Amino acid sequence: MSDPMQPAPEPSPSAVRFPDHVRRIVGATIVPEPGIQLDDAEIAFHTGTGVIDYLGPVRGPARPEDLDARGRIVAPGLVNGHTHSSMTMLRGWCDDLPLDLWLAQMRRFEVRMTAADIRAGLRLAMVEMLRSGTIGFVDMFSWNTELLGDVVDSGMRVRASPGVFGYGAVAFPMAEPEAGGVVLDEVPALAAEFAGEARITMDYGLHAPYTCPPDLIADVARRAIDRDLGVQIHLSETRREVAQSLTDHGMSPIAHVAGLGLFDTRLHVAHAVHPEPGDIDLLARPNVTVSHNPVSNLKLGAGIAPVPEYLAAGVTLGLGTDSVASNNTLDMFEEIKTGALVQRGLHTDPLALSAPAVLSMATRGGARSLSQGLSGRLAVGEQADLIVLDASGITASPNGDAGSFLGYAARGTDVTDVVIAGRQVVADRVVLTVDEEAARLDVRERVTRVRGELDAR
Amino acid sequence: MSDPMQPAPEPSPSAVRFPDHVRRIVGATIVPEPGIQLDDAEIAFHTGTGVIDYLGPVRGPARPEDLDARGRIVAPGLVNGHTHSSMTMLRGWCDDLPLDLWLAQMRRFEVRMTAADIRAGLRLAMVEMLRSGTIGFVDMFSWNTELLGDVVDSGMRVRASPGVFGYGAVAFPMAEPEAGGVVLDEVPALAAEFAGEARITMDYGLHAPYTCPPDLIADVARRAIDRDLGVQIHLSETRREVAQSLTDHGMSPIAHVAGLGLFDTRLHVAHAVHPEPGDIDLLARPNVTVSHNPVSNLKLGAGIAPVPEYLAAGVTLGLGTDSVASNNTLDMFEEIKTGALVQRGLHTDPLALSAPAVLSMATRGGARSLSQGLSGRLAVGEQADLIVLDASGITASPNGDAGSFLGYAARGTDVTDVVIAGRQVVADRVVLTVDEEAARLDVRERVTRVRGELDAR
Repeated sequence: MSDPMQPAPEPSPSAVRFPDHVRRIVGATIVPEPGIQLDDAEIAFHTGTGVIDYLGPVRGPARPEDLDARGRIVAPGLVNGHTHSSMTMLRGWCDDLPLDLWLAQMRRFEVRMTAADIRAGLRLAMVEMLRSGTIGFVDMFSWNTELLGDVVDSGMRVRASPGVFGYGAVAFPMAEPEAGGVVLDEVPALAAEFAGEARITMDYGLHAPYTCPPDLIADVARRAIDRDLGVQIHLSETRREVAQSLTDHGMSPIAHVAGLGLFDTRLHVAHAVHPEPGDIDLLARPNVTVSHNPVSNLKLGAGIAPVPEYLAAGVTLGLGTDSVASNNTLDMFEEIKTGALVQRGLHTDPLALSAPAVLSMATRGGARSLSQGLSGRLAVGEQADLIVLDASGITASPNGDAGSFLGYAARGTDVTDVVIAGRQVVADRVVLTVDEEAARLDVRERVTRVRGELDAR
Repeated sequence: MSDPMQPAPEPSPSAVRFPDHVRRIVGATIVPEPGIQLDDAEIAFHTGTGVIDYLGPVRGPARPEDLDARGRIVAPGLVNGHTHSSMTMLRGWCDDLPLDLWLAQMRRFEVRMTAADIRAGLRLAMVEMLRSGTIGFVDMFSWNTELLGDVVDSGMRVRASPGVFGYGAVAFPMAEPEAGGVVLDEVPALAAEFAGEARITMDYGLHAPYTCPPDLIADVARRAIDRDLGVQIHLSETRREVAQSLTDHGMSPIAHVAGLGLFDTRLHVAHAVHPEPGDIDLLARPNVTVSHNPVSNLKLGAGIAPVPEYLAAGVTLGLGTDSVASNNTLDMFEEIKTGALVQRGLHTDPLALSAPAVLSMATRGGARSLSQGLSGRLAVGEQADLIVLDASGITASPNGDAGSFLGYAARGTDVTDVVIAGRQVVADRVVLTVDEEAARLDVRERVTRVRGELDAR
């Protein structure tokens, strides 16, 4: 990997010829990783392999097939570390309820979702994520060949898990719940089916220790290790969950599932808002990644995770929106700013957490959470997973510090172009791989139907 | 005032003729105040007086001079309850510093701002506020005839105060500080000069009790009462300020300035993050308004104000962004969502504060803070201070609950049109009264100059 700070030779435009399979983004301010800024720079990548093969000063004018990005900012693409993407159908459904009533309302809606509804919700979520600069997501919902195929077609990356609970029910809907055992059998089959797709990672999904009996958790841990698959689970989201676990099992939810073998798998944990003593050591294991979801944790009244402690302990921390039902957007820029702000307020310390540090969670931490060998940085030899932002808007004025803009002022609406694995999937704010208008109209019709069914009861 | 929920007669398009001085917004979903929603509705106002004269079902098709707002949302305009608008020049300047070093850096920059710089900063701020749906703002900085004239030209509302501290210095810059006494004398003169402008309110401005000696505070309180003018002040922003006041004066900053007569004036308080016992009764007085500034309080590590307690005690609470230096935008929609979220997380209670309640702070609370006799609601007989939002975007999908969209998903970029006192000042996302492009380029050049001066030292 090259050092992005190393001086490169003077550009000599006339002398340079670029092969057809190289695509260049020319003239932008490039932030290869939070804290580094290259002005008037160029990044180039191989459109076949998706690998970055140049990062440095501009080597000549943009060709027609290149992107002239003068006055714009290029940054690593964002990864949404925890979401239930098909739940875009539930945006604005019961915003202000106590948690137990809220969950009941979610479930009431979800069990009326058909396989086609789930697919429509996923498509709208992918449009929203792509438009706002998210290149991949870690997801627990209902997953099958068709849905994974839609992600492949979108060009996005996903680490997907079908969430199960109890025994004999899936955590997230199919209109007619299948047996949990069947879902568990499907995971290795889906993983094998998509083994050739570098952008698809298939996990087991366990909803939570308070909805999954110990023998199910232990069974999934064994299956995951036997088949070299990962696991996703919600852990220690609320104080009530932790208190109940201490009562029921004499230990925290994290320690409880660790005792069942789950922390010996390639584990991705959502939330971890309320760690008990000893929990942080488990979360800091190298085989474990954690998604911090500040907006959802605040909106549902779950609380505020000890992010500075996690970072100090070496926890691999990503950043997630959770579903729109508890957010109500999938805009990772909002998550970045809120993630930084809330720690500073809670600790009454403006040094508690900087937005560039949270941006690093959304890029480097998120990339590791995807479990696809990505670094989340822009560097020669790495995958070209990048976003281009308009830097001519009011909130980017005055210009200067791109890191400050990305962390504290940018919004998803500032993203103009997205490249994933060397393929352009958003150009000039238009998603090239999913039909935005159709996705919106489709979801609108389906939501009208479900809400009508609910009103009729 | 009419009841917006009252059924109106059936529309009979052919029969209705509207006078030329009536402008209509036709076919929108109208939210006259948080919690009420009228679908397929019409609002009409007198373009001369700016008074709303109809709110109800659509009375016929839009004329060419009307706004066809089908598929859009109309809501009361937002009021920024506390800002230092000219500080747009300092966006992204020193984001992550301890508070004392941060303040020193702000001051280092500010003292290099010329009168023309201040004017350029104000213009950019007004563009940003108008574009994101803010119809008025409460401001402490440097104010004079020229700057107030710029606000008049913009069509915005302002409650403005030139902030002073110590004796013999202004709190906010002029390149050559004038004597505080002179600034105090200027306030009634400016108030008299703009007495005919219903959209301009002139206040005295005191920076804070820790920068203003007791005799200055008492003097300003007397002057304000004698001349029937209001006062703005920062109070109890940080724990350190409160602790210092307890040491120096044996009481909280709020009690200290109350003892000097300040709570007997028409007082607007910024922050009030850390009230001591007894302070809330003072803040709840009917002559007092308070601006809660959650993003700034979080970013600077000031803390989190007890908003639910304030609302329960009947404090008239508005919502503000503070300057972009501690934010880094003037987008009130972000402030609304963050304001709701942070209370829910802090109290681990999803019922602690709803976004519609915070929207009410930004509209009704803000309107009262402006001290211009406004209600912040859309109703017949009230001023037409309203915003129109695009409801066709992804984050508004699925549609249905406009209040949920406004509180939890909308952003300033969703605002398409703004009407203040019956005058359209933003149309189709273009500010009609201030040149956006010129404002951006002007600020960019001026910031380059100031930063160059700072680097040269």
